[in-house]
Amino acid sequence: MITRLSQLFLRTLREDPADAEVPSHKLLVRAGYVRRAAPGVYTWLPLGLRTLRKIEEIVREEMNAIGGQEMLFPALLPREPYETSNRWTEYGNNLFRLKDRRGTDMLLGPTHEEMFASAVKDMYSSYKDFPVTLYQIQTKYRDEERPRAGVLRGREFIMKDSYSFDMTDAGLDEAYARHRRAYQNIFNRLEIDYAICKATSGAMGGSASEEFLAVSEVGEDTFVRATNSDYAANVEAVITPAPAEVPIEGQPAAVEYQTPDAPTIDSLVDWAHAENIEVAGRAVTGADTLKCMVVKIRDARPDAEWELAGVLLPGDRALDEKRLEAALEPAEFELASEEDFAKNRFLAKGYVGPRSLNANGVTVYADPRVVKGSSWITGADAPNRHVVGLVAGRDFEVDHYIEAAEVKEGDRAPDGEGTLTLERGIELGHIFQLGRKYTEAFDVQILDENGKRATPTMGSYGIGITRMLAVLAEQRHDDKGLRWPVEIAPYQVHVAVANKDAAALEAGAKLVEELDAAGLEVLFDDRAKVSPGVKFKDAELLGMPFVAILGRAFADGIIELRIRGGETLEVPASEIVSRLLELVRG
Amino acid sequence: MITRLSQLFLRTLREDPADAEVPSHKLLVRAGYVRRAAPGVYTWLPLGLRTLRKIEEIVREEMNAIGGQEMLFPALLPREPYETSNRWTEYGNNLFRLKDRRGTDMLLGPTHEEMFASAVKDMYSSYKDFPVTLYQIQTKYRDEERPRAGVLRGREFIMKDSYSFDMTDAGLDEAYARHRRAYQNIFNRLEIDYAICKATSGAMGGSASEEFLAVSEVGEDTFVRATNSDYAANVEAVITPAPAEVPIEGQPAAVEYQTPDAPTIDSLVDWAHAENIEVAGRAVTGADTLKCMVVKIRDARPDAEWELAGVLLPGDRALDEKRLEAALEPAEFELASEEDFAKNRFLAKGYVGPRSLNANGVTVYADPRVVKGSSWITGADAPNRHVVGLVAGRDFEVDHYIEAAEVKEGDRAPDGEGTLTLERGIELGHIFQLGRKYTEAFDVQILDENGKRATPTMGSYGIGITRMLAVLAEQRHDDKGLRWPVEIAPYQVHVAVANKDAAALEAGAKLVEELDAAGLEVLFDDRAKVSPGVKFKDAELLGMPFVAILGRAFADGIIELRIRGGETLEVPASEIVSRLLELVRG
Repeated sequence: MITRLSQLFLRTLREDPADAEVPSHKLLVRAGYVRRAAPGVYTWLPLGLRTLRKIEEIVREEMNAIGGQEMLFPALLPREPYETSNRWTEYGNNLFRLKDRRGTDMLLGPTHEEMFASAVKDMYSSYKDFPVTLYQIQTKYRDEERPRAGVLRGREFIMKDSYSFDMTDAGLDEAYARHRRAYQNIFNRLEIDYAICKATSGAMGGSASEEFLAVSEVGEDTFVRATNSDYAANVEAVITPAPAEVPIEGQPAAVEYQTPDAPTIDSLVDWAHAENIEVAGRAVTGADTLKCMVVKIRDARPDAEWELAGVLLPGDRALDEKRLEAALEPAEFELASEEDFAKNRFLAKGYVGPRSLNANGVTVYADPRVVKGSSWITGADAPNRHVVGLVAGRDFEVDHYIEAAEVKEGDRAPDGEGTLTLERGIELGHIFQLGRKYTEAFDVQILDENGKRATPTMGSYGIGITRMLAVLAEQRHDDKGLRWPVEIAPYQVHVAVANKDAAALEAGAKLVEELDAAGLEVLFDDRAKVSPGVKFKDAELLGMPFVAILGRAFADGIIELRIRGGETLEVPASEIVSRLLELVRG
Repeated sequence: MITRLSQLFLRTLREDPADAEVPSHKLLVRAGYVRRAAPGVYTWLPLGLRTLRKIEEIVREEMNAIGGQEMLFPALLPREPYETSNRWTEYGNNLFRLKDRRGTDMLLGPTHEEMFASAVKDMYSSYKDFPVTLYQIQTKYRDEERPRAGVLRGREFIMKDSYSFDMTDAGLDEAYARHRRAYQNIFNRLEIDYAICKATSGAMGGSASEEFLAVSEVGEDTFVRATNSDYAANVEAVITPAPAEVPIEGQPAAVEYQTPDAPTIDSLVDWAHAENIEVAGRAVTGADTLKCMVVKIRDARPDAEWELAGVLLPGDRALDEKRLEAALEPAEFELASEEDFAKNRFLAKGYVGPRSLNANGVTVYADPRVVKGSSWITGADAPNRHVVGLVAGRDFEVDHYIEAAEVKEGDRAPDGEGTLTLERGIELGHIFQLGRKYTEAFDVQILDENGKRATPTMGSYGIGITRMLAVLAEQRHDDKGLRWPVEIAPYQVHVAVANKDAAALEAGAKLVEELDAAGLEVLFDDRAKVSPGVKFKDAELLGMPFVAILGRAFADGIIELRIRGGETLEVPASEIVSRLLELVRG
């Protein structure tokens, strides 16, 4: 097919839009792929829509290849199923809620576990119907607090979401593995640089859970990779390898000190150096000190109240609130306020130690490094006083171990294979063993081989189609414009006539006909009164992978073939069609 | 491609769903094409989605063929543009409105004139960019007061809407004609029985306007067709041919009578017969009497007040409120209340005549038959009194002629070609010369050839994709099930093994592989423990156009080929692939 630039609904911009911060947003707007309709809500212009549809089609092919059956749920949904799952409430402000003309509560679907589970319940009743994998490619709505970066994080976007239903856990494992492979195929076909990260399961409940993160500086998610293996994980999912326990016997008794000038960890370490205090025969570092953070925790029951708790962390590490949040979920936490300190006089602010927490019945959570027998310099529960040689399991007790400390570049990898590096990524996909959370909530009962009722187990798998387009623009651009992989470029070939000669325009028109006849998709810059310079700039901005230019050299029968982001070839006009066919077909 | 019924996400039902009244609704649910998610909101199951996508693709092809450029607007829209066009208010309860987390008003788009006009305004500035035709195939939302008949009239549905922008009225005429032809192609390809009806332009404003109505008993729209031409029109759009004016001179003076027993038109005619009163030398009929309906009209200005008006109709015709509504739009009307009669003592209820209306400054609207010089028997503005021989233009004046009388089967066709028949239809498409209403409202200013600012003129064209599927089910079914045209059937061929012989199942599996290899889409009923009777019933219900059965005769090398809704052929197994290819390729 041929599209002529003289007729295409397009206006390229030389200036970045004022509200755009990341390259993909700037370029997709400047190249006329998308246009803002409202905050976080975008219109797809003709070029953008073509690429979007091609991405959808690749995802569809890979989903069909693993036996997925496509269907389509509405976006406008009734409240009841989301009440059953409790997500009507849990989604909070992220959910678009509305009332219809009769005052009935409805919502715009953010994800469809509830609807798929209900459909399976209604339509299937025997184990013979299982396993089944269903999917949809559909418009979703989330009222993001901070929609950002154009279509990268919008409030209306297209997702592929699929759901597997199996009678056995082994079946779920297989469905999960099939999706994992399908997702790898999709990302590989789209030439995306990505990592598969172990994830916490979060509010969704369930067990195995991995995220497909595109590696990107503009990503909002931080993740880690091991230097010597393909281990990768969300920061929230990193498990701290616990050191071996230390024998308590023979450790010296704890000693309290007056420490008037040591309100911070650094000053405490300086004080220890000045006092020649050593740990295990070596100079003290921040890692030998113990911070006692005081927080309040409220569990998920509707009538739950805030309760004080302590979180013990090695002094050289900050509290990572996201990690603590993930570890406590569905319970929530807050840092203790001035008021909390005032009400609980045993908390000596700045000098809280684990002993007063134990003594006053406050639950103590600790970093896994606070292993039994480990010895610490920490607060002595009175202003300007610290204690040295306080031993876990002797002088204080840990109630629960928890992942709350920050993860640092260079930390030991959990799988023991080298150390961790920190990277930024954009979540593109999530695969997830949901288990029976939804099938139980919706009372999906299936007769098994013995005629007994059983509840199928469920997996949930999502890929952001809209976001994938943004990521491709993010990972594949240069300072001149976009640079699409041939499989999803709006057009495979861009032909520009950059020669005022009537013969060149005529030859260009003939060439695009030939390329079209050969089955290629061609964007033809046939604009008569546009300078070659502008045409070149637009070709670079729009980002088709192959640009054929009928320019000065055309008088000598040469067409310039620019491989976007690569070399420029001089190709005899007679060979251009076959050459492009080779390049496009790979 | 091959889909196996043993694995397809499908459950056919033998019973009609309780809430279904029309055949398409019953069958689409029973055959597992759709499933209700909420009132007027449906889920597309795998079979339904395949047909829906095929319909979309046909519409897309025909839109591309007339140079339409596909794009995609969001469904979630900001309030402002709809405030500019006043449709935020005009749509009333039909609009789904919602607020986002910041309290900003948003809506779910019912149609997108505003958005397209804004996009053209932003992107184009010169006459050289015109004409342009843009379209989308997109999910729309209307909060119908009475969603009905399954997907026939839903609250979430897919539409193709397109918009043409031209610098000249002649250009708009051409764009309109192109769309008209494209729509004809679409309906013809889908083998839909339809009529193109002249329509009133309604709330949209503008001039030329035609609806594509599918002929159907279950349709909500009544339309007329001429017996001797292809004239068709919405009842609202029927223009009454006015009779010739009658000379006033020489007509006898009006005479008042006491008519104690003539409160109705019928009793008035009986009275005239009893009194031997004649009109033009023949016995009086209802058509010689004149009804004076008293109504209140309020124009569209925000501060407008209700004003009394009279509507004069021949006594043998009822007031058609929809026709009056369409004729008065955007003003609205109500029938006068008891209170109105009480407040306006000159209105003698049941005996109102045009003279008191004229005398009291009440605007008089009249049916076109109340032509100058026509003579009527009508109310004499006092209880139990009528007047005979009241002549229009002599004894009373008409302020405006209006189309408000019911249209009857057998009325003269407006084009003079025979008479009218009344039919019922389902609106499937609407093409519409909007003119400059939206481009003016959005201040779309384009530099013309002389460098002067000009406002482009706009056309709006819609086709209901979802509704088209329902109409196809409605027009093409029998008492056994659906009956799809091959171009949009979910699968072209249905293969059923109705023979317990292992050889038959094996041959069936081999046959579907061959059909797949030949490029056909095959639904394979490979279910092992299902009886032949159930398989036949399901094949009829699901409605694929060609059903190949490996049954009893298969032992003799014969495959039964049932053409859905047609004949059954016995085809040697060796010829079945080529035979099916012929049938499918047409």
